[in-house]
Amino acid sequence: MIVIVKPQAPQEKVNEFIQWIESQNFKTHVSTGDYSTIIGLIGDTSRLQEDQLLSYDIVEAVKKVTEPFKQANRKFHPHDTIVPVGDSGLKIGHGNFAMIAGPCSVESEEQVIGIAKLVKQAGATMLRGGAFKPRTSPYDFQGLKADGIKFLLEAKQETGLPIVSEIMNINHLPLFEDVDVIQVGARNMQNFELLRELGKTNKPILLKRGLANTIKELLMSAEYIMSGGNENVILCERGIRTFETTTRNTLDLSAVPVLHELTHLPVIVDPSHATGVARYVKPMAMAAAACGADGLIIEVHNDPIHALCDGAQSLLPEQFADVAGAVNAIRIAAGSAR
Amino acid sequence: MIVIVKPQAPQEKVNEFIQWIESQNFKTHVSTGDYSTIIGLIGDTSRLQEDQLLSYDIVEAVKKVTEPFKQANRKFHPHDTIVPVGDSGLKIGHGNFAMIAGPCSVESEEQVIGIAKLVKQAGATMLRGGAFKPRTSPYDFQGLKADGIKFLLEAKQETGLPIVSEIMNINHLPLFEDVDVIQVGARNMQNFELLRELGKTNKPILLKRGLANTIKELLMSAEYIMSGGNENVILCERGIRTFETTTRNTLDLSAVPVLHELTHLPVIVDPSHATGVARYVKPMAMAAAACGADGLIIEVHNDPIHALCDGAQSLLPEQFADVAGAVNAIRIAAGSAR
Amino acid sequence: MIVIVKPQAPQEKVNEFIQWIESQNFKTHVSTGDYSTIIGLIGDTSRLQEDQLLSYDIVEAVKKVTEPFKQANRKFHPHDTIVPVGDSGLKIGHGNFAMIAGPCSVESEEQVIGIAKLVKQAGATMLRGGAFKPRTSPYDFQGLKADGIKFLLEAKQETGLPIVSEIMNINHLPLFEDVDVIQVGARNMQNFELLRELGKTNKPILLKRGLANTIKELLMSAEYIMSGGNENVILCERGIRTFETTTRNTLDLSAVPVLHELTHLPVIVDPSHATGVARYVKPMAMAAAACGADGLIIEVHNDPIHALCDGAQSLLPEQFADVAGAVNAIRIAAGSAR
Amino acid sequence: MIVIVKPQAPQEKVNEFIQWIESQNFKTHVSTGDYSTIIGLIGDTSRLQEDQLLSYDIVEAVKKVTEPFKQANRKFHPHDTIVPVGDSGLKIGHGNFAMIAGPCSVESEEQVIGIAKLVKQAGATMLRGGAFKPRTSPYDFQGLKADGIKFLLEAKQETGLPIVSEIMNINHLPLFEDVDVIQVGARNMQNFELLRELGKTNKPILLKRGLANTIKELLMSAEYIMSGGNENVILCERGIRTFETTTRNTLDLSAVPVLHELTHLPVIVDPSHATGVARYVKPMAMAAAACGADGLIIEVHNDPIHALCDGAQSLLPEQFADVAGAVNAIRIAAGSAR
Repeated sequence: MIVIVKPQAPQEKVNEFIQWIESQNFKTHVSTGDYSTIIGLIGDTSRLQEDQLLSYDIVEAVKKVTEPFKQANRKFHPHDTIVPVGDSGLKIGHGNFAMIAGPCSVESEEQVIGIAKLVKQAGATMLRGGAFKPRTSPYDFQGLKADGIKFLLEAKQETGLPIVSEIMNINHLPLFEDVDVIQVGARNMQNFELLRELGKTNKPILLKRGLANTIKELLMSAEYIMSGGNENVILCERGIRTFETTTRNTLDLSAVPVLHELTHLPVIVDPSHATGVARYVKPMAMAAAACGADGLIIEVHNDPIHALCDGAQSLLPEQFADVAGAVNAIRIAAGSAR
Repeated sequence: MIVIVKPQAPQEKVNEFIQWIESQNFKTHVSTGDYSTIIGLIGDTSRLQEDQLLSYDIVEAVKKVTEPFKQANRKFHPHDTIVPVGDSGLKIGHGNFAMIAGPCSVESEEQVIGIAKLVKQAGATMLRGGAFKPRTSPYDFQGLKADGIKFLLEAKQETGLPIVSEIMNINHLPLFEDVDVIQVGARNMQNFELLRELGKTNKPILLKRGLANTIKELLMSAEYIMSGGNENVILCERGIRTFETTTRNTLDLSAVPVLHELTHLPVIVDPSHATGVARYVKPMAMAAAACGADGLIIEVHNDPIHALCDGAQSLLPEQFADVAGAVNAIRIAAGSAR
Repeated sequence: MIVIVKPQAPQEKVNEFIQWIESQNFKTHVSTGDYSTIIGLIGDTSRLQEDQLLSYDIVEAVKKVTEPFKQANRKFHPHDTIVPVGDSGLKIGHGNFAMIAGPCSVESEEQVIGIAKLVKQAGATMLRGGAFKPRTSPYDFQGLKADGIKFLLEAKQETGLPIVSEIMNINHLPLFEDVDVIQVGARNMQNFELLRELGKTNKPILLKRGLANTIKELLMSAEYIMSGGNENVILCERGIRTFETTTRNTLDLSAVPVLHELTHLPVIVDPSHATGVARYVKPMAMAAAACGADGLIIEVHNDPIHALCDGAQSLLPEQFADVAGAVNAIRIAAGSAR
Repeated sequence: MIVIVKPQAPQEKVNEFIQWIESQNFKTHVSTGDYSTIIGLIGDTSRLQEDQLLSYDIVEAVKKVTEPFKQANRKFHPHDTIVPVGDSGLKIGHGNFAMIAGPCSVESEEQVIGIAKLVKQAGATMLRGGAFKPRTSPYDFQGLKADGIKFLLEAKQETGLPIVSEIMNINHLPLFEDVDVIQVGARNMQNFELLRELGKTNKPILLKRGLANTIKELLMSAEYIMSGGNENVILCERGIRTFETTTRNTLDLSAVPVLHELTHLPVIVDPSHATGVARYVKPMAMAAAACGADGLIIEVHNDPIHALCDGAQSLLPEQFADVAGAVNAIRIAAGSAR
């Protein structure tokens, strides 16, 4: 950690500050320039709050040198993590590509089993479906809840596809016992109480980036889960909030190579929620595959017009088959070009 | 709700669409222009999802005409809500100004009681203090939890100041029985499970705007609480995330008059978290009072340098007294100028 | 254009408003609902200002139905525009892919000719190089100006590569007589005086999206050029400003399919300026090719460490050759998958 | 300037780097920690490009310690600048408050003279009016140009109010000979060619912050003007672009105290363009005065409904008189509270 001292700081105040730092068991290195003095702090600075240092009147700025995430950090864990999905044999990461598809909401037993069969045939390796739905309005459909999970499990039974579904309340955890991957939605990315409890399970967690969260905050949220002992975290880029209005959010695909550099965890992309428009899903899915994503999560509905949520961004099963084929072609080309 | 039809839409498809709309018990009004046809939907469109309509191929755009928030909407409740705070006689809203002050985190019994006495003397009408702390890093101090609440209640006993503290997990609700106002933090603004449960209590809820949430989403989150039967919601603007880096977030003071127009709920401002810098708290507190805020929530610490969190943005008690005086002067000037 | 009337608007005021509208030679269609009245305006509403309508007290909202861009609009010009580049035979758009490479700044005759030869060999079809440089600081290197253009023209002579260079001042136009494509930089996207003058030339214009500009504003700036008679506009996505800090800007690749839908103009992508980091250029170039970009513009320098600007984002010529090969592979895969 | 070296950097590469730095006539101070090595560069680092350093493979990050703006920097010029306005005796800054009012566009001689008289009576100290209008669409009204300037000068003659008007093209400079203050609009904040030429004049320049520009970029643009010898720069906060849609832009009032800390130049606020809504102008003008702005620029029109631009945000003269009175009351209260 580096502390930059204000130009006019009186020397005695600087000395006092250095004494305090050293009393906290840090070593210091001081560089004095024409315009400013710089103090390097050596030691485990993860114990120190930037704010504490900034409170000293003589301090102009504080710069962290080492990243605050440890377990998620590729520096300390250079090899790609491969997340195993249930007892299905399916894996995600390090070349294992996840093609997750399914309806936004589970609406009925027939619906979800029907879609599951179709997406499996079209190339999906996992089934997604929402049983508990985070909706901006309390008056919108909130999901079938326990019944939704039940129908998903039936679809899993029928098709063999592992399932992923979103949790919104830690008290619902018992319902997720047979769910293969538990999703934490964008709005709960910094619901630290939920993350901490999921860290105590051994379930793979699909952690979506919040709409206004930086890549480093996403990694800190992964760290919450991992610091509890659960290393099976899958990160998901799903668009961030910007001023642009032609798409629901702005898909930040640069996050894929940036995350691959900073962390060993797998990174997947959700083009459906990011764009909010079905006809942009194919090009963005292809782009995600081209820049190295470890998987995709795509909304598919057999009857988008009558879907109870997010119909505008859902593909028909035959459209999904077309996307899956295109993504496959891109992955082959990208793989040999890498 | 208005549906704009694509220019080249075949007439028979448009007719089919209109039949479907009318089969859902809406009346329609159709206007045909040179470039496009517009269909007005008359009826309770809060039942309808925009997405459902957008899924029809012939639909170019859908515009909501009525706001989706009802109970928070000033159109239907023209008079300002006044939120009573516990049995203290204190009120917030419609000219009742709340001056809330205290430390970011409760650190010890002595600390919080000491600060409580000082801020009361300096003009505070309520005491804030965090017992459960949402921290970006799992390795940072997470609050004293149950003990923190206990110390706050002792400070309340000593000073008579009503207290406000943040809840992060609905399972902690029993601990908040004697807390006067429960805060929902920015990161939990769309933790709908938490909001829904708080809607079943009769506690005043201080609801902070999320870093990437629009004013209308803030109102929809208030609606979650109100639709459960709890009408005592206090809204709080605390900065949004933008590209600017000289302040931690960008305080959106225009939200104050906008919210006063859209809703009858009281609106307070948090200049400490918004700017993240103690020396900007005074001018922004004065600005908030000038544009009509119903209160302020300000971080005060007796020893910011050694504060366990957010020291850089905390005022000393004597600085807070100066801010409180200035805010008072502005309120008097603004009151007669309004 | 649609006008939504406020719920409590007195009928006589509404009638007055309708009379005024009709006096401006628009036809109106009125739909009266339970909550609100909607007035559809039929006629050439591009003459009307939204603001003018909003000034009427009874008006709640105004919605444009038709887009304000005409010449750039795919609705009126369904076929892809193909921009011819000088007399070189090179074309951009509708399957003609532009691979533009070169240094940020022209630094010397040797430098630019040397790089030109290397990038040509590596697969570039055009040479870029800045002679006039927009720099945030007045103290930074501002480009070689007229000499820079001269050196670029020599590089063109040597290699046969058409050249693209940025204009910052309309008075410099005579210097650009032999430049094949004139670039308008992001900071000048809304320098309307410059756009208007470029509309009077017949040069292809490479128009970069501003850091805070929407896709529709980009199209309106293209419209400035086209309304002057110059239809040879190439659009360029180069990243927008968001809160994320691991990349210089956030590359908005969704802009590629959105622009292809809204306009017939070719769309290229600049991954170098968008990310600001050389090692992210390859994955983002591949992603751009996968989602349908009509070209790429990439910074290449033979000695990035000593480059006078933007060294951190420049590729070495051999790295560029690797990118060009990968992009080619992706384009083939994407072409057959489309 | 501080260079942070990558953890695994080979020592010989680090030594090479240090030699290169020292060959550029900088002194270095090296601190070696457990996780990373830090190199402090001492000397005039404004000559160095961050990018150049980042191009070295061993460099993880570079941190500027001293600000790149010099003439605008309060560190080197601690006293407030007071900008004199023409030969009118009017001054801006250091307690001299500018109340600038007038129509968005000059529409006719009668209009601008009429409004000038009314705003003078209502408390304005300067008249604003656009003769050259930057419009998003080429089809919108672009201003009366030379005639607009002429009418403004007549209004000045009639009322004695100094005038401010926007320049869009440096070739128009001769027309502005008798204009008292030249405005650079938000879209031209980084039109460096224009800034440089204005730096050669001795006219006061009203420099508006760009919609996506940071506070430090605003100061760098001021530096462009000042480095040419013109020290009469007035900064203007007018809203930045965010995701919020209830106001046109988000007025960043924190910029006022931040700018007052970083620079000695006066700072004014434009609540009309920032909010885009007439009824939010009064509260935001009051807030701006409360947090220490040195002036306001407010749109006033005698007939907003028929204004040729921005009618929705224009006040009637009597509304402006009310705002001016309220602002005055706030300034008195704020002055004694400061």
